[in-house]
Formats: sequence, C-alpha cells, structure tokens
Amino acid sequence: MSESKVRKINHIALAVNSLSEAENLYVNVLGFEVEHREVIEDQGVKTSMLLSREGETSIELLEPLDGSSPISEFLLKRGEGIHHICFEVENIENYLEHMKLLDIELIDESPRIGAYGATVAFIHPKSMNGVLVELAEIPKEKT
Amino acid sequence: MSESKVRKINHIALAVNSLSEAENLYVNVLGFEVEHREVIEDQGVKTSMLLSREGETSIELLEPLDGSSPISEFLLKRGEGIHHICFEVENIENYLEHMKLLDIELIDESPRIGAYGATVAFIHPKSMNGVLVELAEIPKEKT
Repeated sequence: MSESKVRKINHIALAVNSLSEAENLYVNVLGFEVEHREVIEDQGVKTSMLLSREGETSIELLEPLDGSSPISEFLLKRGEGIHHICFEVENIENYLEHMKLLDIELIDESPRIGAYGATVAFIHPKSMNGVLVELAEIPKEKT
Repeated sequence: MSESKVRKINHIALAVNSLSEAENLYVNVLGFEVEHREVIEDQGVKTSMLLSREGETSIELLEPLDGSSPISEFLLKRGEGIHHICFEVENIENYLEHMKLLDIELIDESPRIGAYGATVAFIHPKSMNGVLVELAEIPKEKT
C-alpha cells in the first residue's frame, strides 16, 4: 500500500542561534538558495527553508523568537545542531493510525497545521532510533 | 560558479545499535527500500543505505563493528541518533580549497575513499552550526 510509505525526505531542520549567520553559510559558502521564510508564532520560531542546486530535500533553519520557544530550550541544552527530520507522507491521518497500531510513540496524536501550510505531526525519538521525526502532508499545489 | 555549490543532500546518517532492527523500522514501517549494504572495515562500521519511494536523499544506517569504532564511541556518549549529513559536490578537491580559504575547519584536509566508492571529506561541526558534514564526490556512473 503506497499510502503507508514515506514519499521522500522533505527537510532536515537545524536549530541555530542566528538565522542570518546560518543563511550566510548555506547561501554564500554552500550555494543553497532561500526558498521561503516564515515566522511561526505559536511555535516561537523564525524559519528559513533552503534548497540545494539540484536536490529536492531542503535544509530548514530554526531560530527561536524568544526564551519560551522549544528551540531556545534545545539550544540551551544541546547547542546548535540537527533538531528533526521531516518525512513527507500522503495521508497523514492514515499514517498516524498505522503507527498507533504498531505501538509507535507519537508526540502529536492528531495532525496540526505547521509551516508552509503543511499538515504535520511529530513522532517521539524513542520510537525512531533517537531521531525526532516530523511527518508532513504537503498541500497538493506544492508537491 | 556551479562547482562551489552543493548539488544535493546525498544522505542523512544515523548511528544505531542494531542495523537489522533499524532496517526493520525503515523498511517495514516507513516503506524505505534497502539500496546497498557494505562493511567498511577501516571505519569499523556496517552500513545500510535506504531510499524512500520517490526521494533522492537516502538514510544511511551505521552500526559499529566493535568497541573501537567511532560510531561505538558516539553511541556510548549520546545514544542513537543522527551522526552526520552528506552533501554531494562536484569537485571535492576544489571544494576543500574553497573552504580552507574561508577558514572553515576541516576534519579531513584531503579527500579519502568512503563507502560506495565515493571520495569524501568531513567538515568540523564547529564551522557548520553544530552539524558534522560529509562532502562526497560520487563516481560519475552513480550520479
């Protein structure tokens, strides 16, 4: 059943202290292009999505808006680094049901709206080899 | 100059305790396919490269062969999780020169042969927002 398969790796998200400094590295040194910037108030982050010359997996930079952001907590505990990986799926509701049946520990039992209008849900790292995994269903016009 | 731009994200590497358990999650739950398996004696790892249904960025699983492997040390210190990201570039020698001029701290000053016949070099996380980055030039017949 293709619906239970990850389509692709949508992005790798990095927690950074300064979005502009990290953008400078990714754009001027590594040659990525800024695809999209967004402030997500309810998650307390400024984001920047960066695309490489040919690839279709993006780098997402996350800078906390203030000290109450979960990204701020991550930076205090662990410093800058990879925060999560996002897997693109087709039907996120079905996907979450599929995972519940397999006793995979979910952070979000139901999907919610994330950046870029995607429907997203996070899976607990303890069920994913220590990796915080985001599942995302991308609106049709953006796939 | 296109040569100084990352072509794409080749893979995301995860350090895992058990390659077969992690493969089971990625193949049977997430729907990835095993593309390639390899034992790299001089790095002390067993690897498995996994590809999603449509995407072109892989997940690489790394299990240590024994206690002397750098992956074994990583697992002891931090537990399972993301070990590095690999960026595909066109001319790795030029790329490393480009980075040296910019005072980016390299782990490998010169490229060496990595898994799958690629020519690779690692960049220090302190120059890469806390992320261990591998650069890889992939043999032409595999791109």
